[in-house]
Amino acid sequence: MDSKKIDTTNDTPSTRRGFLGKSAALGLAGVTLGLAGCKDEATAGGKTAAAPAAHKGGEVAPGQLDDYYAFISSGHSGEARILGLPSGRELKRIPVFNIDCMVGWGITNESKAIMGTKPDGSLKYTTGDTHHVHGSYKNGTYDGRWLFINDKLHSRVARIRMDTMETDKITELPNVAGFHGIFPDKRDPVDPKIDYTTRVFCGAEFHIPLPNDGRDLEDPSKWGALFSCVSAETMEVMWQVRVDGNMDLCATSYDGKLAACNQYNVENAADLNGMMAAERDACVFLHIERVEALVKAGKYTTIGSSKVPVVDGRKTANADPKTAISCYVPVGKNPHGVNASPDGKYFVCSGKLSPTATVIELAKVLQWFDGNVKDPRDTVVAEPEIGLGPLHTAFDGKGNAYTSLFLDSQAVKWNVDAAIAQFKGDKNAKVILEKFDVHYQPGHNYSSMGETTQADGKYLNSGNKFSKDRFLPVGPLHPETEQLIDISGANMKLVADHTAYSEPHDGIIVRRDVVKTRQIYNMTDFPNAVTPETAGIERKGNKVHVRLMSQAPAYSMPVIKVKKGDEVTITLTNYDKVEDLTHGCAIPTYNINFIVNPQETKSVTFKADHAGAFWMYCTHFCHALHLEMRSRFLVEA
Amino acid sequence: MDSKKIDTTNDTPSTRRGFLGKSAALGLAGVTLGLAGCKDEATAGGKTAAAPAAHKGGEVAPGQLDDYYAFISSGHSGEARILGLPSGRELKRIPVFNIDCMVGWGITNESKAIMGTKPDGSLKYTTGDTHHVHGSYKNGTYDGRWLFINDKLHSRVARIRMDTMETDKITELPNVAGFHGIFPDKRDPVDPKIDYTTRVFCGAEFHIPLPNDGRDLEDPSKWGALFSCVSAETMEVMWQVRVDGNMDLCATSYDGKLAACNQYNVENAADLNGMMAAERDACVFLHIERVEALVKAGKYTTIGSSKVPVVDGRKTANADPKTAISCYVPVGKNPHGVNASPDGKYFVCSGKLSPTATVIELAKVLQWFDGNVKDPRDTVVAEPEIGLGPLHTAFDGKGNAYTSLFLDSQAVKWNVDAAIAQFKGDKNAKVILEKFDVHYQPGHNYSSMGETTQADGKYLNSGNKFSKDRFLPVGPLHPETEQLIDISGANMKLVADHTAYSEPHDGIIVRRDVVKTRQIYNMTDFPNAVTPETAGIERKGNKVHVRLMSQAPAYSMPVIKVKKGDEVTITLTNYDKVEDLTHGCAIPTYNINFIVNPQETKSVTFKADHAGAFWMYCTHFCHALHLEMRSRFLVEA
Repeated sequence: MDSKKIDTTNDTPSTRRGFLGKSAALGLAGVTLGLAGCKDEATAGGKTAAAPAAHKGGEVAPGQLDDYYAFISSGHSGEARILGLPSGRELKRIPVFNIDCMVGWGITNESKAIMGTKPDGSLKYTTGDTHHVHGSYKNGTYDGRWLFINDKLHSRVARIRMDTMETDKITELPNVAGFHGIFPDKRDPVDPKIDYTTRVFCGAEFHIPLPNDGRDLEDPSKWGALFSCVSAETMEVMWQVRVDGNMDLCATSYDGKLAACNQYNVENAADLNGMMAAERDACVFLHIERVEALVKAGKYTTIGSSKVPVVDGRKTANADPKTAISCYVPVGKNPHGVNASPDGKYFVCSGKLSPTATVIELAKVLQWFDGNVKDPRDTVVAEPEIGLGPLHTAFDGKGNAYTSLFLDSQAVKWNVDAAIAQFKGDKNAKVILEKFDVHYQPGHNYSSMGETTQADGKYLNSGNKFSKDRFLPVGPLHPETEQLIDISGANMKLVADHTAYSEPHDGIIVRRDVVKTRQIYNMTDFPNAVTPETAGIERKGNKVHVRLMSQAPAYSMPVIKVKKGDEVTITLTNYDKVEDLTHGCAIPTYNINFIVNPQETKSVTFKADHAGAFWMYCTHFCHALHLEMRSRFLVEA
Repeated sequence: MDSKKIDTTNDTPSTRRGFLGKSAALGLAGVTLGLAGCKDEATAGGKTAAAPAAHKGGEVAPGQLDDYYAFISSGHSGEARILGLPSGRELKRIPVFNIDCMVGWGITNESKAIMGTKPDGSLKYTTGDTHHVHGSYKNGTYDGRWLFINDKLHSRVARIRMDTMETDKITELPNVAGFHGIFPDKRDPVDPKIDYTTRVFCGAEFHIPLPNDGRDLEDPSKWGALFSCVSAETMEVMWQVRVDGNMDLCATSYDGKLAACNQYNVENAADLNGMMAAERDACVFLHIERVEALVKAGKYTTIGSSKVPVVDGRKTANADPKTAISCYVPVGKNPHGVNASPDGKYFVCSGKLSPTATVIELAKVLQWFDGNVKDPRDTVVAEPEIGLGPLHTAFDGKGNAYTSLFLDSQAVKWNVDAAIAQFKGDKNAKVILEKFDVHYQPGHNYSSMGETTQADGKYLNSGNKFSKDRFLPVGPLHPETEQLIDISGANMKLVADHTAYSEPHDGIIVRRDVVKTRQIYNMTDFPNAVTPETAGIERKGNKVHVRLMSQAPAYSMPVIKVKKGDEVTITLTNYDKVEDLTHGCAIPTYNINFIVNPQETKSVTFKADHAGAFWMYCTHFCHALHLEMRSRFLVEA
């Protein structure tokens, strides 16, 4: 295909060639070292792609835009990722719990403040394990405001603001280990007028001593697990619930009332055989309004030095359904995953070591909490046999469910209503519609808009853990296979095998018109922004503050001089306003490396402990004279 | 496309379904906690994909393999990357100078030893800036043994072994700043019988005081730059050459005799205007055999505490061509890039601020060194005007060159012989064959096998720095555009717009049959491999060594008990032999996270400074009971 022949009418703003022409002019003729204001492209407002066009198969032609964003986790890479679908293009890595020396995440003062530091100023953690990413809701679908993502390793919740696609808050959960499932509420559990996300719920797989200060090491039967609730707005931990068993994945009801978690360890065991002992495990529902009423009434304890209220959700404390905050519904053995259907009626929880998916009806669970259903098991309305190793279930909005089968290496498509009919005794119900081979060992799957009321039944992604022979060999460490499946027709069609650096778990597929981003920052958003008036060098004792501006192809100071032993802070504001015109700032020996996007400000602080001349240089291609964009950082002995 | 209908005959080993069947068995029935030997898939030998099949366009169907590997740099992300082409699938990230908490790079003792540590055991650097990746040669083409990659930020060379695609050595160059270009020799410069890579050459952009200890800060005219040579085998620095001007990109001749570097700063200036003062800059050739004769004869100095021999390659010391080690050939203004043509005859050096490419004939440069060409400029055989902002040149093996035009945002195809004819006076010579728009601001381009005698003229990659409007918007930080162009026909055809996380610079495109990888390690390659005999816990004073084995779904010790204040070393050997069956090892609070591939051993050392119970868990999906794969790490108060 010739690039000149591509029809980009739908996707191309009129500024494209204008932008190119201007940059070229900047490059050759526009070599200006001053910092005169630049008026071009200063539109800091939101940018949204139009509603999706139709693409055939997985190929998105050059110059064409994808139909969907996928926001996915990265496992113990510690980051979040944005892909375009169906192409599979990696549009961005979002550093969250990891160090990313490209953007300077974990290097700049601003990112270190978000990540958390030790008393000596070094990072508290440099590792993380992200499993689930979910977006904030409004009116039952994504509002494009926030993403929330978990860290299983250090039990942290991070929030990503979707206008800039950057992590803006990280909260560590007290007295929690193995924080795995995360899900925002879809509307307020208490105030029915609030139809958007206000809380984020967090499961916890592992039992630990409470508090975990060295007590009870020898007696795991005294250990416990907590379910946590974090404020979406402040990111503070609002309350926790002590539970029996563990809390693995999370889901929330569309009416805002309930949070659900699957439990693979109702046994409260500390070893593998113990965790597999019971024939049934559970799906636990928490009644959020009742939890918060207990907190409000002061009926809580606290654990160790944490001030977070902890209420008791264990069975013995919740014998009467009419006051209970928790309902334990028996499901198949060692389940891994619970998902809410987009019609708002059902939760599906699969028994990993049982070949079944358990369908639980929300209305019946609410009736149980009202005392009108006797046995929690009576909330189950279907339990079809669907295949070996069922894990996670996605939906197409047309009444069908798609469950990943880890052991069979398949995606199974089954009909929810048919499963319910079969459970009621209809022997002619056609439950299983199709079994589709995936390559190999699928973990999560997720469908386009599938966790919203706007589930559109277009794509299903199967995140496969093993990729043997699907891609060119690259040594002992294999990529994973993210298989994109078209589910819009009667039969599933494999569209693409995309690779992934280990290891994505869950994700969401979001229609592109839902996402509204900013291309340029507001300089005034940064209280420490450098202005022509404040630019320069300021010394207070041995503390030196260097206030710099960048505009291609130069920093505002060609020479910066400090003394050995100084504590140096460099604050850099990027005065370029051209979209995509990012500058880097690296200083050899001092291990400094970060970027400033258009109109952004960042800072670093370090001790000048090596005498010599060090070239601070721009690491991020900006201009024809990018290589020449550098200043001398001189440290006098 | 239905996955069941895919014809994978060419790409699929017969073991595929067998593998799947076996894993399923392992998953359900094979829950064994012991560590009995596993005989499957123990073939630790090399794995190579067959010679490329033909793909149309950029789409590679699910289950089909790519034709080429691309090994590319990542700029200040600090890593190397492997892509499949034409699909653009990211097959692997190779951590080099960055911290990668997924594999544990910068966390394990083994990776820290390669990266380098401070006296306190912490990493010396956690940032890097990789620009150029090149493979080792044999008989004029890649031998698939090593990749070499630069760090411009901290002036380091890293070597990647291609059987496992892992960094195995990192060397810091003494007295060098802004180490940018890197290129291995293509055969031995001294011994004509050695027809493979023995040395790696390293340019240096920035002038610094020599040594850089605080002297001469005020007088950049006293500063200087060194060209370095590193042994490919030992990775030790063999020698350095003091030069006039700077040394930017590198190229080497196919006869092994010469190394070339473009100079954009013949002025030896320390500021932007100074660097743009001269109308011509230079391409410098170094005569390696003569350099090494000087070193052998003791005609060198050393700088500061470095013991590396430094010979003088400046013009004043090299007035007589017959004994000179350096030849400075004038070229267009502020060049950025020098490339050797695959016929071995020419070097092309483009003047970034001049619209020209300068073609220099190797034979004439050798004649200059013999005293048979008077003026270095007489080695120039062509200097066509090709467009604005010419940077790098790739070749198709059919006599055509493809130069990236940064300011025009184009790739220009031109014929080398026609340019030579035009330079001789042929006014009818058709030099420019095609100008092709790219989107936008291309830096490096590179062609399939284009830097070997096997240049095949199939693909050209244009690494474009800006991507505005080519992809779905993701906020102020844009991905870059790697445009894949089919150059096999009379006209260039755009095949795909691939995205890239900032910011790849150079890369190489390698035919897939050249690469031979190992899927499984040899356990005996690791001197610290844990055996059933040595497994367990050993205490010497407050030093505790925990020797662990992993086999899905368990570690060999369910409980590990230490005391607060202990220095703990955990050594973990993965006993699984199934290809792709990697285990992770994470310990909360202790910031530990790393993986062990099949039959691999790694270790970590840390101080147990928090009392409590911490679940060491498997972070890398391995088995149906992966979630249950965990041990209790207990730290007594």
